[in-house]
Amino acid sequence: MILDGRTIAQNIYNSLGEDIAQLKDTPTLGAILVWNNDESLRYIKQKRKFAEKTWINFKLFQFEDTISEEALKSEILKLNNNTEISGYIVQLPLPKHINELRVIRNIDPKKDVDGFHPENQWKVMIWDLTGFAPCTPAGVMKILEHYNITLVWKKISILGRSNIVGKPLTMMCINAGATVTSCNSRTPDISEFTKNSDIVICATGIPHILKAHMTSPDSIVIDVGFSIVNGEIHWDADYNALISQWNSVTPVPGWVGPMTVAMLLSNTYKAHILAHE
Amino acid sequence: MILDGRTIAQNIYNSLGEDIAQLKDTPTLGAILVWNNDESLRYIKQKRKFAEKTWINFKLFQFEDTISEEALKSEILKLNNNTEISGYIVQLPLPKHINELRVIRNIDPKKDVDGFHPENQWKVMIWDLTGFAPCTPAGVMKILEHYNITLVWKKISILGRSNIVGKPLTMMCINAGATVTSCNSRTPDISEFTKNSDIVICATGIPHILKAHMTSPDSIVIDVGFSIVNGEIHWDADYNALISQWNSVTPVPGWVGPMTVAMLLSNTYKAHILAHE
Repeated sequence: MILDGRTIAQNIYNSLGEDIAQLKDTPTLGAILVWNNDESLRYIKQKRKFAEKTWINFKLFQFEDTISEEALKSEILKLNNNTEISGYIVQLPLPKHINELRVIRNIDPKKDVDGFHPENQWKVMIWDLTGFAPCTPAGVMKILEHYNITLVWKKISILGRSNIVGKPLTMMCINAGATVTSCNSRTPDISEFTKNSDIVICATGIPHILKAHMTSPDSIVIDVGFSIVNGEIHWDADYNALISQWNSVTPVPGWVGPMTVAMLLSNTYKAHILAHE
Repeated sequence: MILDGRTIAQNIYNSLGEDIAQLKDTPTLGAILVWNNDESLRYIKQKRKFAEKTWINFKLFQFEDTISEEALKSEILKLNNNTEISGYIVQLPLPKHINELRVIRNIDPKKDVDGFHPENQWKVMIWDLTGFAPCTPAGVMKILEHYNITLVWKKISILGRSNIVGKPLTMMCINAGATVTSCNSRTPDISEFTKNSDIVICATGIPHILKAHMTSPDSIVIDVGFSIVNGEIHWDADYNALISQWNSVTPVPGWVGPMTVAMLLSNTYKAHILAHE
């Protein structure tokens, strides 16, 4: 079976579109773009495209990459107070002279649809669903939910421990009742865990760190990790060569982006509803 | 080998006492006590005793258990603004008509020496050492540090996933480079993980959940979990019967309390220093 993240994302877009068509006011997603590199522009374009597809307004706030941290902060405070904006993101990375964490702390947690603010990360940790979970981990949980894969009694290996994917995912899976092993580049033998896991989630950015012999044929494999080397995308799981040996696997390429954006737009809708309650 | 938490706690008290004797101003630990049950009174007494031993002033703020949540909040805001108080705790549990999480959010994170405020829990998650880690997990890390047990390359099983012990410990061990498995009451077979772990940490409150046959003789076992049944304390690890089979183990009873209080007083000293920098 292929866990079809692309189709699930499409379903989310469709149902969001229907929900939003019912609203009196249209939600608006804001995006602050400071560093105009190709990759950031591509991400912004994708977010705009799918926002518009679900009838969410999209407003870009673009600044020169020479903007000071103080000036950027005051732009953020403006967006916090701007009632037209339901939620917004600060497209990362920021230029090196700006401290990303310090900037993100200024976002109103109720508008932090990327789920990067300390308050929202803390809510993920304590399983408080009133917050906004970071979009990629939320997308993984959504896929599991879609296929009715309950996590209670399950053993999960998570490869990677970043602050915005690996660690929040670890917390979310623990909260959902799973037995979770967090592996990293200093795990003596990852396959000791992956082989005996019901679910393996890859989020390292190390090409082909997960090979077929490291998993059981019954495993569900979800791969959100990739790196781009010489313009080519390389995934954590050796998907093409090995799909025949796996029970369930998320197809690559092409699902992480749409699913992550789908969760961003779900968060924007949620922020809009919470603000109008 | 016995990991002697009691002696380590004593060392911390001694060295804190020496550091504090050098200061011009004496740090002060505040404690809000609302619910005067026997257990809370016992904890408060212990904190006062060891604070005074390390030359930290101790100030108790006692209220009737009929106090409203609003009134308690305004007492907390007073302590935030009180420059005489370096840091303070709100002794839990609170009476049922008061929401503990809502109350704790009002503590100034810079005075939150229990490490329960969202900001401090978030800092634990992202490995930002400027915050205050919760005291029991911090005590476990301190013991490992004392015996030069590095966590990189190590496999750790953590039994229990509470918001103030199990989950923060999981994050702290992940951040320190370990491969960490979080087990809970729905783990099909805990011994599958504990047997192959270098370190097993118990924090469930389920008497004798860890038996000797579930661990390897080389394992280091640290037990912070206990429950009190009919006035008798029951530990997670079956210590008395089985110590002979283990390589390293924290002795019970009597180490968790002193070590937790030692970390609370370390945090109070840190809060005092940060406020005067």
